[in-house]
Amino acid sequence: MAPTLKKLLPVFPLSILSFCFFFFLFHSTQSIFSFSRISSHTTHHHHHPLDPLTPSELNITRSIILTSYAGSIPNLTFHYVGLDEPDKPDILSWLSNHTSTTKPLPRRVFVIARLNKQTHEIILDLSTKLIISDQIYSGHGYPILTLEEQTAASELPLTHPPFMESIKARGLNISEVVCSTYTVGWFGERKSSRVLKIQCFYTNGTANFYVRPLEGITVVVDLDEMKIKEYYDRLKVPVPTTEDTEYRLSKQKPPFGPRLNSATILQPEGPGFVIEGHSIRWANWAFHLGFDVRAGPIISLASIYDLEKQKYRRVLYRAYVSELFVPYMDPTEDWYFKTFIDAGEFGFGQSAVSLKPMEDCPAQAVFMDGYYARQDGKSVQISNVFCIFEQYAGNVMWRHTESDIPGEVITEVRQEVSLVVRSVSTVGNYDYMMDWEFKPSGSIKVSVGLTGILEVKGMSYTHADQIKEDVHGTLVAENTIGVYHDHFLSYHLDLDVDGEANSFVKTSLETRRVTDNVSPRRSYWTTTSETAKTESEARIRLGLKPADLVVSNQNKKTKVGNPIGYRLIPGSMTSPLLSDDDYPQIRGAFTKYNVWVTPYNKSEKWAGGLYADQSRGEDTLAMWSLRNREIENKDIVMWYTMGFHHAPYQEDFPIMPTLSSGFELRPANFFERNPVLKTKSPEILVNSINHNRRAGAFHGV
Amino acid sequence: MAPTLKKLLPVFPLSILSFCFFFFLFHSTQSIFSFSRISSHTTHHHHHPLDPLTPSELNITRSIILTSYAGSIPNLTFHYVGLDEPDKPDILSWLSNHTSTTKPLPRRVFVIARLNKQTHEIILDLSTKLIISDQIYSGHGYPILTLEEQTAASELPLTHPPFMESIKARGLNISEVVCSTYTVGWFGERKSSRVLKIQCFYTNGTANFYVRPLEGITVVVDLDEMKIKEYYDRLKVPVPTTEDTEYRLSKQKPPFGPRLNSATILQPEGPGFVIEGHSIRWANWAFHLGFDVRAGPIISLASIYDLEKQKYRRVLYRAYVSELFVPYMDPTEDWYFKTFIDAGEFGFGQSAVSLKPMEDCPAQAVFMDGYYARQDGKSVQISNVFCIFEQYAGNVMWRHTESDIPGEVITEVRQEVSLVVRSVSTVGNYDYMMDWEFKPSGSIKVSVGLTGILEVKGMSYTHADQIKEDVHGTLVAENTIGVYHDHFLSYHLDLDVDGEANSFVKTSLETRRVTDNVSPRRSYWTTTSETAKTESEARIRLGLKPADLVVSNQNKKTKVGNPIGYRLIPGSMTSPLLSDDDYPQIRGAFTKYNVWVTPYNKSEKWAGGLYADQSRGEDTLAMWSLRNREIENKDIVMWYTMGFHHAPYQEDFPIMPTLSSGFELRPANFFERNPVLKTKSPEILVNSINHNRRAGAFHGV
Repeated sequence: MAPTLKKLLPVFPLSILSFCFFFFLFHSTQSIFSFSRISSHTTHHHHHPLDPLTPSELNITRSIILTSYAGSIPNLTFHYVGLDEPDKPDILSWLSNHTSTTKPLPRRVFVIARLNKQTHEIILDLSTKLIISDQIYSGHGYPILTLEEQTAASELPLTHPPFMESIKARGLNISEVVCSTYTVGWFGERKSSRVLKIQCFYTNGTANFYVRPLEGITVVVDLDEMKIKEYYDRLKVPVPTTEDTEYRLSKQKPPFGPRLNSATILQPEGPGFVIEGHSIRWANWAFHLGFDVRAGPIISLASIYDLEKQKYRRVLYRAYVSELFVPYMDPTEDWYFKTFIDAGEFGFGQSAVSLKPMEDCPAQAVFMDGYYARQDGKSVQISNVFCIFEQYAGNVMWRHTESDIPGEVITEVRQEVSLVVRSVSTVGNYDYMMDWEFKPSGSIKVSVGLTGILEVKGMSYTHADQIKEDVHGTLVAENTIGVYHDHFLSYHLDLDVDGEANSFVKTSLETRRVTDNVSPRRSYWTTTSETAKTESEARIRLGLKPADLVVSNQNKKTKVGNPIGYRLIPGSMTSPLLSDDDYPQIRGAFTKYNVWVTPYNKSEKWAGGLYADQSRGEDTLAMWSLRNREIENKDIVMWYTMGFHHAPYQEDFPIMPTLSSGFELRPANFFERNPVLKTKSPEILVNSINHNRRAGAFHGV
Repeated sequence: MAPTLKKLLPVFPLSILSFCFFFFLFHSTQSIFSFSRISSHTTHHHHHPLDPLTPSELNITRSIILTSYAGSIPNLTFHYVGLDEPDKPDILSWLSNHTSTTKPLPRRVFVIARLNKQTHEIILDLSTKLIISDQIYSGHGYPILTLEEQTAASELPLTHPPFMESIKARGLNISEVVCSTYTVGWFGERKSSRVLKIQCFYTNGTANFYVRPLEGITVVVDLDEMKIKEYYDRLKVPVPTTEDTEYRLSKQKPPFGPRLNSATILQPEGPGFVIEGHSIRWANWAFHLGFDVRAGPIISLASIYDLEKQKYRRVLYRAYVSELFVPYMDPTEDWYFKTFIDAGEFGFGQSAVSLKPMEDCPAQAVFMDGYYARQDGKSVQISNVFCIFEQYAGNVMWRHTESDIPGEVITEVRQEVSLVVRSVSTVGNYDYMMDWEFKPSGSIKVSVGLTGILEVKGMSYTHADQIKEDVHGTLVAENTIGVYHDHFLSYHLDLDVDGEANSFVKTSLETRRVTDNVSPRRSYWTTTSETAKTESEARIRLGLKPADLVVSNQNKKTKVGNPIGYRLIPGSMTSPLLSDDDYPQIRGAFTKYNVWVTPYNKSEKWAGGLYADQSRGEDTLAMWSLRNREIENKDIVMWYTMGFHHAPYQEDFPIMPTLSSGFELRPANFFERNPVLKTKSPEILVNSINHNRRAGAFHGV
């Protein structure tokens, strides 16, 4: 079965009257209804070797393993089930040669399972239904936590008598307590076991329980035993009030505001994109959109059509969020361990949420579902895990007004339209809104919006004047400290700039003094390009020296002889502030440089290591890179880490307005010239409705 | 007369059929038509003391000066005519006390005129029609160049026999030559006169003459004499081809593409803003939008309504682009002087263009005109100089999905709507798209989009392999070098954070080592806040050390005791690369730091000096700041300089896809909590049209 199986029929509750509007305005019903030819695929044929595992493939995987481990199934838990994608040469060969009769590439699955306190790495083949390999992982660190074990662990305190006593001693009602699970990190311990810490909260009517932490209680749960292993209650601080912390509209009281007027985007021609399975074509772009339980969205094989060369040219082989690192900056007992490696610990795909139509995405969006295997191996659907939409933000692709030609004023403007792929991963309290935006000009803009709820610490302070110590955060409300923290997102960017053999070129901008008397100038800047030969030459901490960073194909040149390339325009230049020798930083060492380049290696996917939970930094990008491999004219991967230092403000409480950042991959002598020179603005079909508005005294509603 | 005088009647070419759509879908004609109550004001009453000069005020100004200088008028030229705004205390007092019967504040005009090779600074009163002062400026530098004198100068070569000879010698046709004017900068000369350099181009059928420079010809024009003062022709290089350089749609040949599907935004309730004269109210924002021939748009008195305090609270007194610095990096004879100070030399308002409805701004935009005085003092209209629109980009104001409460999943999302004020200034070849975006969350996002045409140099090279010297740019096409350059935009940001007495607080993020054994951690970061006492303590070069930069009102605190503030989230951290002692950098010294803070001084408006043309750096922000005045708990102004180093790529040719950057002013403990906690998403009125789209095989058009 195809991944998005829902047998949805086109639903058109358009009233006959709105229909009349469309019918006569556009003279054709074709153009209205053609945008919604939604059909279901029931064939087993895989459109694409990078398609994520379908529900049936997930369930077959479970059956194969269940058969193999017949006696042990009750104890076997699935922690990662994902496509073990074919090797890159096979994919590329398939891509260039496949026809409707080409034999599909083998479908293999990579599984990480736990059984009898051991981590198994299993590879199996879906067509032969055979297990190809099954190895026990004996290194440090543990796989992604399942939602089920997190739920089970978080419920343990509620029936744990010492905890119940603690709640009673605080004068609170146990039925109003909600607990959440926290990975414990690694702090130099020689031995480790698979444990979690639990933090509990007092809801008492609010959905925003995060703002009501019960401080001073330590609960350590052994996950393999699913038992509380340690418990102590050290101190009592007041539980912050719920006043003005509720964010649910249904629970809020007037006054509401400010009021925002409504709008709807109509696309009389329908959307301009075509989605077949997981392959998306739009304007001059074609790419594949996959879902992985760890990474969330994966963009593959993004190519852009070159109007001059009359062919698609590849830009990206694969791109996704490889890892996140979210260390909190409170070294005290209850908080020191909060140094999360979100993708590897919680699964950035497993944490993806169902997008709310008309709210998370605009009205013109189309949605796609995602599937992953739950703890027992059965498939789970995340409906609407992605939305895809054309963004009409009112921006301009390019323009010029020419008034220097006598007798005429020329104004040429082209409107910007871009295609956005959006997902949201909510890791506990925080919501990460991830956008991949494709522009006809060849730019790919990647952005992340941080929203959701702060992690706060309960303290006795009710006013800043009382604070004489370092409380490691901001007093954002009475008894409520918004704790300092960072967010680092590391992107795996396997650019294949018109082919696999690429180089990383750093073009530095350097001041030159004018030393002779040939110019009235005393200085200027010019550029010096260096091609990184090995990994060490491609580690960049941004902001120190101005430079253009380009992934270049030195084997191909433009007509005038410039090597073709794509450049990284970084947004954030944030670097970590933890010491290199601090345990969390050892684990999150991939954040040390904003940019790294490695030779492509199928196994190097996760910048924080395959087993991030309680990892010891032995399998991070920083370690791989120590081999200092050659990267010139090779298939290379660029890793860019975008960071946020977050010292909270009261406005971030009780729910945080989106804070955005991003970066851009922009063609750099990839095209012979501006690739949208001959792009027309979208036709103006409904120009009479809002037109001719001028301000004089202009009264809206 | 009011500034936007056009007697426009509401124009509704809605067909009866589209009307039927609206009528029945929204059950009311009210909500449809109410958005367009456009009325003309014919009263002389000034709504606001910061309103820009009206056409009649400009013409009255001219008459007063004409009367005063009766005999000299043929030689008198107007270079700046703008509102001499009342002193800040008077404005603030008027603001808090005015009623419909309040006597308006005096309307004064500041004029810079040239007469008999002298620069006059004239202040006059419009109500008394008297000249208050008239002083001759005897310092260095010259005022803004008028369009008329630029046009006159640029036409001189065409009838200058040696130039005609040069064209003939090149085998070119003089009727196809277009010339443009370039300010000459200052390079240590002791004496100066008011001169311009002229660069000519060969159009030969293309509108994009900038890409066909005639190199090697130097033409210096004395503007006071309006005569060619120097002429020489040194070398001949091929004129680049016109092939594929045309950007006018009407002149292009197929194939076109990529194709973009159309969309229209409908606002069934109409826009949510109200414009009265130059005052704009939208959602929780209120501000004044003025036009100045030098600055372009000026945002004044921006205040935000605080739902909790039930009052408007001021954020900004005035904000505008104070200056631009665009130095090119070619030190050779034909190019070394290209070190433009765009606002002061060419007028960023004078360079503003008429925005193209439906193209430069989305369909829902409302337009406003601007007026300035031309060289002879008569008023000129720039129609549609601003557009104002609600931006529905499909973003999210805040969201959270809560799945940790047993038995329920809560998803709350609020859509982002913002208000954008847009203008475009085209200074010769380059187009600067300036957006001021107001968000209900209190953020003001300021962005600039660079587009238009590169300044290119003609050279004999046709392939990069031929180049063995530093050509100071990129070979973007045959015979065409896209010359390296910078763009620096300095914003004057007079924040009045809930009152005038503000301080500048730098909160540094600093690593702390854990020295005792109290924590398993070895490090964390915390914050140290320093309040700048004098100007020298507030000069910031970004990127060196992580810090939050806050303009704070230390006299007002939130309930929990945090001083209220607004913080600067910088986008670009670009710093100049020219030597401090280089002449262009002396003139553009305001770019040396990304952030400066000065005490408010009505006369300190232009970061590059009042007389930027041939300035010598004596009147820049860098010089004012040397006084090292006290800035703690004073009325202060923050200056932020955003920069771009631009090493061109072939994609920037022959017209450049927009490259954007920006910064954000974001409330920082200004509110007690998230100010949009109780904001509802706009109502969904047309949810049936695009709804229920799901990807399976999804075919667009």
